[in-house]
Amino acid sequence: MPIKTIEWIEGKVKIIDQTKLPQKLEYIYCKDVETLREAISSLKIRGAPALGIAAAFGVVLGIKDSSAQDHLSFQKEMEKVIDGLARSRPTAVNLFWSLRRMRDCAEKNKDKEIKEIKAILEKEALQIIKEDKRCNRQIGENGASLIEDGETILTHCNAGALATADYGTALGIIYRAKEKGKKVKVYIDETRPLLQGARLTAWELLREGIEVVLICDNMAGQVMQEGKIDKVLVGADRVAANGDVANKIGTYMLAVLAKENGIPFYVACPFSSIDLSLSSGKAIPIEQRNSSEITNGWGKRIAPQGIKTYNPAFDVTPARYIKGIITEKGIHEKKGDVIIFEKEKYLQR
Amino acid sequence: MPIKTIEWIEGKVKIIDQTKLPQKLEYIYCKDVETLREAISSLKIRGAPALGIAAAFGVVLGIKDSSAQDHLSFQKEMEKVIDGLARSRPTAVNLFWSLRRMRDCAEKNKDKEIKEIKAILEKEALQIIKEDKRCNRQIGENGASLIEDGETILTHCNAGALATADYGTALGIIYRAKEKGKKVKVYIDETRPLLQGARLTAWELLREGIEVVLICDNMAGQVMQEGKIDKVLVGADRVAANGDVANKIGTYMLAVLAKENGIPFYVACPFSSIDLSLSSGKAIPIEQRNSSEITNGWGKRIAPQGIKTYNPAFDVTPARYIKGIITEKGIHEKKGDVIIFEKEKYLQR
Repeated sequence: MPIKTIEWIEGKVKIIDQTKLPQKLEYIYCKDVETLREAISSLKIRGAPALGIAAAFGVVLGIKDSSAQDHLSFQKEMEKVIDGLARSRPTAVNLFWSLRRMRDCAEKNKDKEIKEIKAILEKEALQIIKEDKRCNRQIGENGASLIEDGETILTHCNAGALATADYGTALGIIYRAKEKGKKVKVYIDETRPLLQGARLTAWELLREGIEVVLICDNMAGQVMQEGKIDKVLVGADRVAANGDVANKIGTYMLAVLAKENGIPFYVACPFSSIDLSLSSGKAIPIEQRNSSEITNGWGKRIAPQGIKTYNPAFDVTPARYIKGIITEKGIHEKKGDVIIFEKEKYLQR
Repeated sequence: MPIKTIEWIEGKVKIIDQTKLPQKLEYIYCKDVETLREAISSLKIRGAPALGIAAAFGVVLGIKDSSAQDHLSFQKEMEKVIDGLARSRPTAVNLFWSLRRMRDCAEKNKDKEIKEIKAILEKEALQIIKEDKRCNRQIGENGASLIEDGETILTHCNAGALATADYGTALGIIYRAKEKGKKVKVYIDETRPLLQGARLTAWELLREGIEVVLICDNMAGQVMQEGKIDKVLVGADRVAANGDVANKIGTYMLAVLAKENGIPFYVACPFSSIDLSLSSGKAIPIEQRNSSEITNGWGKRIAPQGIKTYNPAFDVTPARYIKGIITEKGIHEKKGDVIIFEKEKYLQR
């Protein structure tokens, strides 16, 4: 059974400390929003859907002990909490989607008592986690139809149970294919600098009894060229309205190489990762992270002192390299050079 | 002044222990062939041209104390030494080229006294190191003409002084461009698993006062997509007669991405890296290295226990992605989908 990455237990957010994996499966109980915010910034919890859930519970934690007596003060406090959470990581849109949903929920219930609003917000966050679980199963179901028995899939970073409430998006598809009796083998890029592939995906797939081969990021082209890969399947942190995909740094390279080698390239994500307000991927903000992630590896200095680095956490893959985006609503395929999301239909969610 | 990577000093081969860089600049004095062979296998010395030089001195060390009284015994001993060195690393052709040259030299002088043959072989090895130095300067001169003032070059692994006797091939071009007053900036891939880019190239370029930015291998596509790179320039471990290039794993990915982004992709190497006996890169043997290079980083386990890996040390870039190969003889450009080396002309070397 896929592991639970984030849970709400007796007024605390229970998360796996993913920086400790695969050596230790260790949980953190966040009882205030500051602890949770730090866990987000330091990637103890990561993955676009999991960040959406964490943000919702962050709001619950942040207003839990509010002593505001009037609605205006309460609203101000909540905005401060939301603002702090919104600054924790910039790229994954689910975080902002989730914060907006919590704000809308409070707004809709503004005539109720503050105590009651707090309870309603807690229910809303629980609803988000429930929807994510259901959504992942549906993504798995939709995507599994694309996987043939005996295929080998290349994936990058972690779009598994550890990136969601449980089950995962890209890995959920692999789990579902396996449940349906298909044999699937996975190549996983280690995903420098923070090694989410080597540490998290490798751990998660081994735990599920799936055959997995770990490679360095710069080996992906070679395994494609050698004919070892049937499909590439990754997650997403934010998708623009034209189908351009922001995902973990290195995704763009895989997409170009897949195209060059005639290998279908698919993205799996919840529909909440699609940001219909952005016309193209050029508008997606890309998080730049600290130099030490590159210069220091595993507690040890790798690179010479005084070296400059460039450390974007994500890149943008233009839609023209993507064969389809798999969400809980179906498989969105490419028409010409863009992916069509049928905005009118889907906005009625 | 570029650092000396390999020297012959009082009957010993003095090499930099490159596994200790950039933390420590430490030398090893190899006084027997076993020590040198181990240094080659464990990448204390690496880089195709440097391996050629090391192999030649390995022969000198291996037969130095031979007590063979007759030519047949001496020849047998020498063949054993050559055979051992030939097994140390399989991909870089310079190693085999150099061993063949030493064998031919002994053969040509077989009528001389054994003591005299030993002295001639030592001279031949010294000649190889001298030629490498001259050759690197000429590669630098030929390649520097391609670099415009103010350009930014992306390189991979280490094709610098540390991969040759001194000065380097791809980096030699950058050094020569700088000597000619051109401003050059370099992006360097860290080059997993052994980080030759982060450890060696970064160190070497900083030492030469060249502006350098370190990135992870999976960021190269993004920096190209962002328009940061004017040219890609790498070394080679072996080039087939059609211009297909075996070089450090990850080179093929860079070449595909350069093509996709309209960036010229150049390879620099001595002509001795060109193996005219192989009609295409498909015939180049690719070294597979130990799993622990991927699963363990800097003395620490990264990946979960029981994980499988795939660890090719090199990949092959088809000639169609390469704009030109720069050797001491000139810039060999692509005609159609192959690089023309004008075999007849060059074989008279």
